[in-house]
Amino acid sequence: MKLVGFDGGRIGVALEDGIVDITALSGVPAGSWPPVGMVRLIADFDGLRQAIAEAVAGGPRLDPAQLRLEAPVQWPNKLIAYPANYQAHIEEQITSKVGLISTFKASGQGFFLKANSSLSGPSDPIVLPALPDRDIHHECELAVVIGKGGRGIPRERAMEHVFGFSCLLDMVVRGREERVMRKSFDSFCPLGPHIVTADEIADPAAISLELRVNGELRQQASTRDLIVDIPEMIAMASSVMTLCPGDIIASGTPAGVGPVVGGDVVTISISGVGEMSLPVVQGAAGAHSVWDKQEALSA
Amino acid sequence: MKLVGFDGGRIGVALEDGIVDITALSGVPAGSWPPVGMVRLIADFDGLRQAIAEAVAGGPRLDPAQLRLEAPVQWPNKLIAYPANYQAHIEEQITSKVGLISTFKASGQGFFLKANSSLSGPSDPIVLPALPDRDIHHECELAVVIGKGGRGIPRERAMEHVFGFSCLLDMVVRGREERVMRKSFDSFCPLGPHIVTADEIADPAAISLELRVNGELRQQASTRDLIVDIPEMIAMASSVMTLCPGDIIASGTPAGVGPVVGGDVVTISISGVGEMSLPVVQGAAGAHSVWDKQEALSA
Repeated sequence: MKLVGFDGGRIGVALEDGIVDITALSGVPAGSWPPVGMVRLIADFDGLRQAIAEAVAGGPRLDPAQLRLEAPVQWPNKLIAYPANYQAHIEEQITSKVGLISTFKASGQGFFLKANSSLSGPSDPIVLPALPDRDIHHECELAVVIGKGGRGIPRERAMEHVFGFSCLLDMVVRGREERVMRKSFDSFCPLGPHIVTADEIADPAAISLELRVNGELRQQASTRDLIVDIPEMIAMASSVMTLCPGDIIASGTPAGVGPVVGGDVVTISISGVGEMSLPVVQGAAGAHSVWDKQEALSA
Repeated sequence: MKLVGFDGGRIGVALEDGIVDITALSGVPAGSWPPVGMVRLIADFDGLRQAIAEAVAGGPRLDPAQLRLEAPVQWPNKLIAYPANYQAHIEEQITSKVGLISTFKASGQGFFLKANSSLSGPSDPIVLPALPDRDIHHECELAVVIGKGGRGIPRERAMEHVFGFSCLLDMVVRGREERVMRKSFDSFCPLGPHIVTADEIADPAAISLELRVNGELRQQASTRDLIVDIPEMIAMASSVMTLCPGDIIASGTPAGVGPVVGGDVVTISISGVGEMSLPVVQGAAGAHSVWDKQEALSA
């Protein structure tokens, strides 16, 4: 099943012949704030299967062209991200001017968080902050959406806690400031175009990802090359924190990261999961003295 | 006004003669999930002033001794934290075995995030993860709770966006792993015992904080010594991200951080804001291979 967010907090099932609105089943009215409808639906999903099936069988089909798709999850408990999780990306960071944040891979470094407010949807542009001296890079990632929450989830049971998958871009301003800040600008975490439920993915350990800029291939990899694989990401995160339904894990970027500028179009496609293309626009906001350091790019 | 969370998502006004339950005014029923009642109440606060005043005037008083207080905000959009924001703390980190994460102060480093799931309340113990080779430190911090949200908030208008203040402990496992992970264990962000609304604090630039372990004074400072002060924290964060009602900013810890162990009692008190004492217990969870590195404590 493919679940979408649209039109100000509505939730839909995306089908071949259109989108069926199942907002009412979440118990969270469209337009209510904060926008936690999808998180609620994910938490209650097992109990709602029959009602969703009935809605899908009989519900009117909406024309996707008439809707505005949004990030399918907008206000999770947390948005987790694993850095340095593909060997080829670590090597390109070592040899680039960007440098490494840590001498550890994800297996020894752990995870960080991106701000919920950085989440944007498939209809939203990536808005670059006005930091003219900085490179702003695309990072192509598979998003893992947590279904059943928990703490101390063993690796062997981890995949039972996966609700589904989505495409995610982990945009970042390069530099030596706190990584979390450099990765948390508004629109720096496009998510979508939908969540594909886990039952539709035959082998999560062999999902192909690719990213193109203006049609040119820049990143290409498979989840088989992850250093910390999906079950272990869940085990590690839940050894620290209680995972909640709707939590998102950005699984790390492969090699091929690079700068984008206003006017570019970034396309992410993940086999069996989905594809979305996002325009990049240069914004006017974002300047602050925290970025004004001579040495910021020197390491 | 002092606002508390209690008994599974209820919201109250704490008065001299008891607590008045105003949960119904938030529009979020007690016990509903996710627990966003206080975030909703903060967003709607200006329009609810009259209704809250009427509830307080006529409402029955509950005995605080009969209630279980919770973190007053449990599911914000984000939980922001400023590192290296008191000079004396930076100096103690330089001279300790812990070392600095960054060569920049908060003014050049920026902010990070803690997980929402690390929030705990004044009735909850601090549960230490089972990492016997690691020091786990207390950090005493003033929490700033955002009222009116926004992006690009100028320093001069920043205090208009402050809803109130609370006491916050930023617990941390020392080491060289990602700071976000080391600071995001469940119960590593006690918040409370209530939110004091901003109108009750005469001068936010001269708030005194102190922290005691087993009654012994360990940390003592004033917000006048902040490197990035409260208005600038809001300006910097909102230059990157849209701030939302209910967002929390942990303003940084002064000097005097140090380890706690099971059996300790940590007391944080902030002038005009509040005080809370929390027992520390040694937990059984938290072990993972990510912590098993010979060199983890060496820098």
